[in-house]
Amino acid sequence: MALVVQKYGGSSVADADGIKRVAQRIVATHKAGNAVVVVVSAMGDSTDELRDLADQVSPAPPGRELDMLLTAGERISMALLAMAIANLGLEGRSFTGSQAGVITDSMHGKARIIDVTPGRIQTALTDGAIPIVAGFQGVSQTTKDITTLGRGASDTTAVALAAALGADYCEIYTDVDGVFTADPRIVPAAKRIPRISYEEMLEMAACGTKVLMLRCVEYARRYGMPIHVRSSFSNRDGTWVTDTTPPAGEAAAMEGEAMEQAIISGVAQDRGEAKITLVGVPDKVGEAARIFRAIAAAAINIDMIVQNVSAAATGRTDISFTLPRDDGHAGMAALRALQDEVGYERLLYDDRIGKVSVVGAGMRSHPGVSATFFGALAEAGINIEMISTSEIRISVVVDENDVEMAVAAVHSAFDLGDGEEQAVVYGGSGR
Amino acid sequence: MALVVQKYGGSSVADADGIKRVAQRIVATHKAGNAVVVVVSAMGDSTDELRDLADQVSPAPPGRELDMLLTAGERISMALLAMAIANLGLEGRSFTGSQAGVITDSMHGKARIIDVTPGRIQTALTDGAIPIVAGFQGVSQTTKDITTLGRGASDTTAVALAAALGADYCEIYTDVDGVFTADPRIVPAAKRIPRISYEEMLEMAACGTKVLMLRCVEYARRYGMPIHVRSSFSNRDGTWVTDTTPPAGEAAAMEGEAMEQAIISGVAQDRGEAKITLVGVPDKVGEAARIFRAIAAAAINIDMIVQNVSAAATGRTDISFTLPRDDGHAGMAALRALQDEVGYERLLYDDRIGKVSVVGAGMRSHPGVSATFFGALAEAGINIEMISTSEIRISVVVDENDVEMAVAAVHSAFDLGDGEEQAVVYGGSGR
Repeated sequence: MALVVQKYGGSSVADADGIKRVAQRIVATHKAGNAVVVVVSAMGDSTDELRDLADQVSPAPPGRELDMLLTAGERISMALLAMAIANLGLEGRSFTGSQAGVITDSMHGKARIIDVTPGRIQTALTDGAIPIVAGFQGVSQTTKDITTLGRGASDTTAVALAAALGADYCEIYTDVDGVFTADPRIVPAAKRIPRISYEEMLEMAACGTKVLMLRCVEYARRYGMPIHVRSSFSNRDGTWVTDTTPPAGEAAAMEGEAMEQAIISGVAQDRGEAKITLVGVPDKVGEAARIFRAIAAAAINIDMIVQNVSAAATGRTDISFTLPRDDGHAGMAALRALQDEVGYERLLYDDRIGKVSVVGAGMRSHPGVSATFFGALAEAGINIEMISTSEIRISVVVDENDVEMAVAAVHSAFDLGDGEEQAVVYGGSGR
Repeated sequence: MALVVQKYGGSSVADADGIKRVAQRIVATHKAGNAVVVVVSAMGDSTDELRDLADQVSPAPPGRELDMLLTAGERISMALLAMAIANLGLEGRSFTGSQAGVITDSMHGKARIIDVTPGRIQTALTDGAIPIVAGFQGVSQTTKDITTLGRGASDTTAVALAAALGADYCEIYTDVDGVFTADPRIVPAAKRIPRISYEEMLEMAACGTKVLMLRCVEYARRYGMPIHVRSSFSNRDGTWVTDTTPPAGEAAAMEGEAMEQAIISGVAQDRGEAKITLVGVPDKVGEAARIFRAIAAAAINIDMIVQNVSAAATGRTDISFTLPRDDGHAGMAALRALQDEVGYERLLYDDRIGKVSVVGAGMRSHPGVSATFFGALAEAGINIEMISTSEIRISVVVDENDVEMAVAAVHSAFDLGDGEEQAVVYGGSGR
């Protein structure tokens, strides 16, 4: 008998029929001899609707009260799911984040989990009940106020709870069949990745793959908790995210699939960034530090940084970096305020860019990956604006209009598709 | 500086505009130098909408989960109200029933308050914040599960919290101007009752006056907590419900109003009952006990009971009683099962009845009240089917079609109207 934590996103419990379908899946897992703990998001768009209500009464609602409001969403979905389970003859027992022992800091709207003390969940399991836990929410250790963990954080709740309970694995149910070698909307031949390591998944998530949130994967890696991302609309296997030694449950589920390591796991794209270039920065010690201190002070996370070799004749250089598009105006404002101090010549802003990345632990031991990558782009006539690399990832910035062509060309160059898997609708998961 | 608990019903916070209007009233009370604690119901019909969702997933949802679901309603309204208060420059701090220390038994859907431990409310007051407490909900002392107190129980939450905090008085805001001498929809000349005693208000509530719930008045009487029932849509004084010695706050508010005790406080009607008659019951010791034990075993509360004098020739008598119309079928079924044992001849059921009552502490010392009452009905040509009395109330059962005429005739006979007050829309309060 395995202990399984199942997480269902908002699209899986969008209405009464969805809730009843999810209840049947949970009951089937239970009847197959597993102990099941469920984590659930709010129904469909209900969180957005609550947020709209808040906007109607206040232009700047306090974080504590916004968290109190938004946590009503999971309260509704988890109670309904428990009722639907009861209707199938088993006991569903719903718990708020606070009741489930999800202890956080006090940063309303983006609280971090400090500890999970799931005493009531364990009691429910001992009683033979199926605990249904609200995702996305917790309670502050110091103020005892209700907190939320930020968008997409129900996945993190699930993994944290699975780790605290010592679960065998954590299933993340969403509206796609798992993680694919590329976005099937762009590359119809893209195939499902049956198994991927934590660090590859981290790079994929950081590079724009939206199926799993970065934070959830970080948590899973830290605790060595295997994740199975799969669709709540089918019974197909999804993608296992694990360390390199597959656990028993995974090995069984992967029977018949090749276990050898591919060089490249997948291709990811991200259109959410913008590029800022400082032209003619004096090539002096400390200038870059001054610039990025100003960006950090504006609470902006930067991604790639490129600095040209200084032109000897002028003693000046150009510095480009990418940042989230939403922070574009704030970033430009911070740098404009710095012009006299730094003495750069011009500031350029470009949000018509896209980032394309290949990710694969196999590239560590295979030279020539960047040559294949850049060659594929050259053959497709695509200009590379910036390059950055990690040990298991290569990313380039290209023109926004070239993103789809680049993804298709690179996917083909690394021979990632095989046409076996049918492309499915590939959207963001619920929170 | 007074400590005031204000309760706002669902109709007062039905939408964003309502919430903002209520926030202004709260802030005005605070700025007038009072410490304010607010109890709020769910917005408009939102509790019914949640209940509909439950019906969609399960024909018989478990009480624990139904309570978890329904308590989402106040969570939303209280957070929005706190935001609207913040937008006016003060701090609103929302608390669930559990956070506010409303400790109950474990009867889901109709839990009773065991204790109120409002430590966090007192801390909020000390901090200068305005605590906003969810009405209708609490937490079970034994299971730590979320409970609800039943329909209309937000009034009870407010009074219980006021008592635990040692508040000066409790304001119940609703959509009518207070308690009237009769339903203004039936008697346009009905006037607002400026002051009424707990026991009169208990009789009025028990006889069908829906402005305040019976349970809330019982609680207020037990703790001697003055209640001011008034409209959130006007600034007019409402009705003070107190013991016979008015407190300082009330005396000030009632300045200029006659303090002498009227003989009759008001006329109430109730169309929610049915009448069952057992014809030809053998006149033996213990028969009535047997009959009403069967009714009690079916968890039915009976109201009036009338037993005719036994006819000496037959040794048989008739017994009639009234019960909530919703329990009519269950009551008949319980009695049918008893026919052989009791040996009554026939069972009659009538739900086309109405109850009309006059209530007034003054009737204790004024003879002739029943003569005036019955005389008014006779003049109006209305037949009386049953009569019951308490020390401060006389009730009759009449034909359903005669109820409005009876109320008007009795109101006029006791000279209760004076035309000073304008009739207002007179509906049920929120919960």
